[in-house]
Amino acid sequence: MERIPILRMGEFLLVTIQVDMHDQLALTLQDDLSTMISKTGAKGVLIDISALDIVDSFIGRMIGNISGLSKIMDAATVLVGMQPAVAITLVELGLTLPGVLTALNVERGMALLRQRVLTQ
Amino acid sequence: MERIPILRMGEFLLVTIQVDMHDQLALTLQDDLSTMISKTGAKGVLIDISALDIVDSFIGRMIGNISGLSKIMDAATVLVGMQPAVAITLVELGLTLPGVLTALNVERGMALLRQRVLTQ
Repeated sequence: MERIPILRMGEFLLVTIQVDMHDQLALTLQDDLSTMISKTGAKGVLIDISALDIVDSFIGRMIGNISGLSKIMDAATVLVGMQPAVAITLVELGLTLPGVLTALNVERGMALLRQRVLTQ
Repeated sequence: MERIPILRMGEFLLVTIQVDMHDQLALTLQDDLSTMISKTGAKGVLIDISALDIVDSFIGRMIGNISGLSKIMDAATVLVGMQPAVAITLVELGLTLPGVLTALNVERGMALLRQRVLTQ
């Protein structure tokens, strides 16, 4: 599988990361996502990482990049579904994902995005 | 990654299949899904296969099994995001997925499920 699918849910986009990321896949995802935001006028991006047991600095940086990219295109990014062990590791590694919103699961992430869109 | 994540979206569950399926993964998915339906009381399951370039008889059978399982637990199953080439192959192979509802994308799949829940 050479692409991570981007699902449109109303005015938001949902990306579920299930596979090990590598450079080319991360770049393709960023390309696809920017195209989708531009095409759909999405106001928010949800990145679900509930399938990931490990988040290393590479994925951390990728999430930061996606968040920056979305912000430039006027969309907020929410990271959802982080496993407790992943959160602990991130803090221990000092990877605090600055500028990235987080929520416990997709539903809460959607609620957070809706709230932000309403108060804009 | 040893599990396919199941995301809760309101009263429906969303499963995005991105990786190559094998026996154990398919069994785990069915286990997890039945647990989730029972726990959440979900009325519908969306299976997104937009990341799959190939759907063989194994995946076809798995989708049929999930659909049957969900039906017993009073939830409808909608298969979404099928690529045109996959649809052509399925028809050529004679795999017509009897009893499985389909929709073009997640949004339409959700609309279909909502309609079914309302008319029940």
